[in-house]
Amino acid sequence: MTDTAVASRTPLTLLGTGAMGTALARVWLAAGHEVTVWNRTAARAEALAAEGARVAASAAEAVTANRLVIACLLDDTSVGEALDGISLAGRDLVNLTTGTPAEGRARAVWSEARGARFLDAGIMAVPPMIGAPGSGGYVFYSGSAELFEEHRDTLAVPAGTRYVGADPGFAALHDVALLSAMSGMFAGIAHAFALIRPEDIAPKDFAPLLVDWLTAMAPAAHQSAERLQSGDYTRGVVSNLAMQVAGNATLLRTAEEQQVSPELLTPYTELMERRLAQGHGDEDETGVVELLDTRRS
Amino acid sequence: MTDTAVASRTPLTLLGTGAMGTALARVWLAAGHEVTVWNRTAARAEALAAEGARVAASAAEAVTANRLVIACLLDDTSVGEALDGISLAGRDLVNLTTGTPAEGRARAVWSEARGARFLDAGIMAVPPMIGAPGSGGYVFYSGSAELFEEHRDTLAVPAGTRYVGADPGFAALHDVALLSAMSGMFAGIAHAFALIRPEDIAPKDFAPLLVDWLTAMAPAAHQSAERLQSGDYTRGVVSNLAMQVAGNATLLRTAEEQQVSPELLTPYTELMERRLAQGHGDEDETGVVELLDTRRS
Ligand SMILES: NC(=O)c1ccc[n+]([C@@H]2O[C@H](COP(=O)([O-])OP(=O)(O)OC[C@H]3O[C@@H](n4cnc5c(N)ncnc54)[C@H](OP(=O)(O)O)[C@@H]3O)[C@@H](O)[C@H]2O)c1
Ligand SMILES: NC(=O)c1ccc[n+]([C@@H]2O[C@H](COP(=O)([O-])OP(=O)(O)OC[C@H]3O[C@@H](n4cnc5c(N)ncnc54)[C@H](OP(=O)(O)O)[C@@H]3O)[C@@H](O)[C@H]2O)c1
Repeated sequence: MTDTAVASRTPLTLLGTGAMGTALARVWLAAGHEVTVWNRTAARAEALAAEGARVAASAAEAVTANRLVIACLLDDTSVGEALDGISLAGRDLVNLTTGTPAEGRARAVWSEARGARFLDAGIMAVPPMIGAPGSGGYVFYSGSAELFEEHRDTLAVPAGTRYVGADPGFAALHDVALLSAMSGMFAGIAHAFALIRPEDIAPKDFAPLLVDWLTAMAPAAHQSAERLQSGDYTRGVVSNLAMQVAGNATLLRTAEEQQVSPELLTPYTELMERRLAQGHGDEDETGVVELLDTRRS
Repeated sequence: MTDTAVASRTPLTLLGTGAMGTALARVWLAAGHEVTVWNRTAARAEALAAEGARVAASAAEAVTANRLVIACLLDDTSVGEALDGISLAGRDLVNLTTGTPAEGRARAVWSEARGARFLDAGIMAVPPMIGAPGSGGYVFYSGSAELFEEHRDTLAVPAGTRYVGADPGFAALHDVALLSAMSGMFAGIAHAFALIRPEDIAPKDFAPLLVDWLTAMAPAAHQSAERLQSGDYTRGVVSNLAMQVAGNATLLRTAEEQQVSPELLTPYTELMERRLAQGHGDEDETGVVELLDTRRS
């Protein structure tokens, strides 16, 4: 690598060398960035020194070292603690720490009050997916569009980037919304495996059917999105709510036959029943989204 | 079409011309099969007469007409009622009616006692997917392997076929297991849409992210299958249960911030907490499947 190539890469500071921070630092170092790291427990940053990182003696020293400061700490509270009393004037703070939308928004106000531009982020990846372009992992960003544009290439080094808006809460909101949807899918998968468990069916033979089916059915979300945007839950419905609620009875009876707890199934079936009882039998299932809004009840 | 081609196609009887039965009859007729239909409410079979179907005056007459008898009725009870007192000697009964595994097994015993070979089925499709090869729809079959092999080509006309074993309960079990998993995924999708709903985020912009993410994460089921088969829930775990339970707190706090009911989220998070409390923090999430087994508790 020529000196010019190295010089063209933005030097950066990384606060936090836990599992994720270490994975990120390695990829930036490998790409030729000058990386200054700091970790509360100094010993945990040592391995990176051998790989070319500069290890700062304090968070203040790390923040002073570079304009671009990236935090990847446990939670929002630890970001406040690590940066407590440190001037952020003229810094670009990118917060890769997982948090809620409200925490992202509050941290943006806090950062700007200290003179920094701010970008919040939500990492849709586990450490082995960092620096692995084909892994499907990426990072949501929201907040200062200027900051994002300026550092876009640097941020894209460890994982794909998706900027989702100026509202600093949106990265966390997108992150949590996708993780929540995945949690529902994993609950469904757990229930399905529990159903076949008492039988002579190999989980490995069953899994491909499950994965293909979920992959084929996930795009139903596009139709729900259209209905939510138009407010019309009834046009062109193939399986209406009344039919679906009738079908749910078969799912519940099967759980009982297979001696599987229905606890992961009933919250959604009961929600559908509530919507049906309100006279929405001719809708598809999308209308239940309205019942989840606690501001209405 | 030549007479020979028509003659080579198996003539069949279809009991039930509701939404699904009508879709099936149309595709078999279009493929050149001789189709005899019967429906409890005769008027609902009339349209098919114009398309070439023979309409039987009674279920008994319909059953006498052909060796291959396919039932697509509302539920298992309606199959018993429609065929009550009718001889099935020498018939091949294929039951496309949705039911539970126990109903499939009992219906097999009942059919064999009446002299018929029996195949149970679970339709993984809605009527518009019938006769549409690219739609991803298909039908699970289980029970008599002989019957399946003999009529495989005829059964493959309206939708793809997947034979899942001699146990006549397995078609229904596979059907219900996939539908239950889908129900979990749809619950997750509903929660995700509810989270973004108070914000200026277009559902249509959000849906592609959701679909891509769920599609990328569904293959985690392959790993769960391996763990269930080996009984080892800890080897090579990237995000262990302790980390996941900590992460769930962010999902729950975000629901609260967005004023979204956590009812679809908590059953799974609580199950994970129970598994963690039993000392399984170093496992992945697959171990919760064991907690769903009501025979253990
Ligand atoms: N790992 C993943 O799979 C994954 C995936 C997506 C997102 N994330 C997010 O990435 C962030 C980091 O995760 P990780 O996996 O690297 O976690 P980790 O391995 O547990 O590391 C946590 C880091 O936070 C530091 N820390 C904790 N409390 C602190 C405090 N009060 N002041 C200063 N530093 C503090 C720790 O320092 P010490 O070494 O001194 O304890 C350590 O550097 C989290 O927000 C996580 O949600 C992780
Ligand atoms: N539609 C779908 O999306 C779909 C998807 C997968 C599986 N399935 C399954 O396919 C089967 C048929 O569904 P469908 O959509 O066609 O339902 P449908 O339109 O409601 O038709 C029900 C059929 O069952 C008949 N029936 C009901 N009770 C009866 C009784 N006691 N004796 C005799 N016949 C009786 C009805 O006859 P009458 O006309 O006289 O009422 C009608 O032919 C069901 O098991 C369903 O679960 C449907």
